[in-house]
Amino acid sequence: MRMALGLSYNGQGYSGWQSQPSGNTVQDRLEAALHRFATQPVGTLCAGRTDAGVHALMQVVHFDTPLERPTASWVRGTNRFLPPDIAVQWAQPVADGFHARASAVARRYAYVLLQSPVRPSVDAARVGWVFQALDHAAMRQAAEQLLGEHDFSSFRAAACQAPSPVKTLRRIDIVRRGPGDAHGPCYWRFEFEADAFLHHMVRNIMGCLIAVGQGRQPPAWMQQVLRAKSRAAAAPTFAPDGLYFLGPLYDAAWGLPRRTAAYDWLP
Amino acid sequence: MRMALGLSYNGQGYSGWQSQPSGNTVQDRLEAALHRFATQPVGTLCAGRTDAGVHALMQVVHFDTPLERPTASWVRGTNRFLPPDIAVQWAQPVADGFHARASAVARRYAYVLLQSPVRPSVDAARVGWVFQALDHAAMRQAAEQLLGEHDFSSFRAAACQAPSPVKTLRRIDIVRRGPGDAHGPCYWRFEFEADAFLHHMVRNIMGCLIAVGQGRQPPAWMQQVLRAKSRAAAAPTFAPDGLYFLGPLYDAAWGLPRRTAAYDWLP
Repeated sequence: MRMALGLSYNGQGYSGWQSQPSGNTVQDRLEAALHRFATQPVGTLCAGRTDAGVHALMQVVHFDTPLERPTASWVRGTNRFLPPDIAVQWAQPVADGFHARASAVARRYAYVLLQSPVRPSVDAARVGWVFQALDHAAMRQAAEQLLGEHDFSSFRAAACQAPSPVKTLRRIDIVRRGPGDAHGPCYWRFEFEADAFLHHMVRNIMGCLIAVGQGRQPPAWMQQVLRAKSRAAAAPTFAPDGLYFLGPLYDAAWGLPRRTAAYDWLP
Repeated sequence: MRMALGLSYNGQGYSGWQSQPSGNTVQDRLEAALHRFATQPVGTLCAGRTDAGVHALMQVVHFDTPLERPTASWVRGTNRFLPPDIAVQWAQPVADGFHARASAVARRYAYVLLQSPVRPSVDAARVGWVFQALDHAAMRQAAEQLLGEHDFSSFRAAACQAPSPVKTLRRIDIVRRGPGDAHGPCYWRFEFEADAFLHHMVRNIMGCLIAVGQGRQPPAWMQQVLRAKSRAAAAPTFAPDGLYFLGPLYDAAWGLPRRTAAYDWLP
């Protein structure tokens, strides 16, 4: 039987999603917990591999198992063996044709950024940080130039394993909360939706959006970076701290839950 | 010269505010950082001592120092020597009569609670957790019975050092965010304002409000607990995870900043 699981985690203490000999990854912790619950090894495949320090509100994995248990028991049983910063949100049997990565028609990420003269503290490692004020209109203008189907090589990490750098970026929303002046700090929430993302793509786009937002580059510069098809043209990769994988989107026919746990929590 | 500092911290990794021989408290870290910045020992006195695991959005301290530095330099200089989960938000010279604890005319706390079938993960150690749905109206009714001046002995920890158990609770707001049903989890935010709080008072009130919210006790039971003036009458002390010291309030004549950093961050 093929099973799908939705899970959320705080990536702060982990070396990313992908299993490593060190064992300190989210996949290692999940598979160890599934092994204990199922009393046999369980190999998982995920919708989107997250980097070290990156969080997930709804990662989705699938695996095959001969074990038949009520779905609530997969959730509770696996959570019993997971550390406090990782939790399975739902479990559901799926048709054999379902594949957590290949069946995903879109993926969504959010980046949460604190703009404040003082660095984060209560929310350390959970939000990115800038101390200079950002220009909302300039960032929106720069973001619009990335929408649609493009070769995103300029925003791609050298280690990226994707077969093609061509992706379709469908949406970038930029929302501000709070005054962001002498009366107090503000939070920015950047939300991205694409068919798929290259390695470091959101963090590289964030670096460029912030360069524009701080006036170090004009909005039209984003077009130049995109056309250069070279990582050297873009700004440095921004910190992983404020990055959240919101989850994949699947065709409704698979019948999987669409809710994203704890999204309201984000500033 | 007397200086006041406002600071925020994530209490997860610390044994509370108050200095201890272990050195693993927020006061120990702050005084070590001040010592390095001022190149001489600095003893601080705070507005409200927080327990192990309790967070603060705006703790206020005062201390006396012969050192004259621009206020921005106190903030930046001290933050350079503080760990990532503690940050000074502002610094300001104050009149000699100012006393962080004695001058405070009120204090505010918030408790953030996740109601979900699944325990917290992304926000582990930063929110409390219940899996059963809570009755908003019943909790409001119970909370109202605590407003005003009362002997709060029933909500007081044995170790409490306050000279009197009589406090004036001015406000309890209870707000829900999110559906809290099959469509997803919800967050509850409880906000408390009093002239002062006894040791464990908010966490003990939270335990009782949740007992009422879950229907284990009727709203009128809160009155009985209050009248009993005995810790044995109340529910167990609730977890520190979701508790935030929002800060003290001072007479405007002291001229201190009133903003509370990152409050918008709370769910």
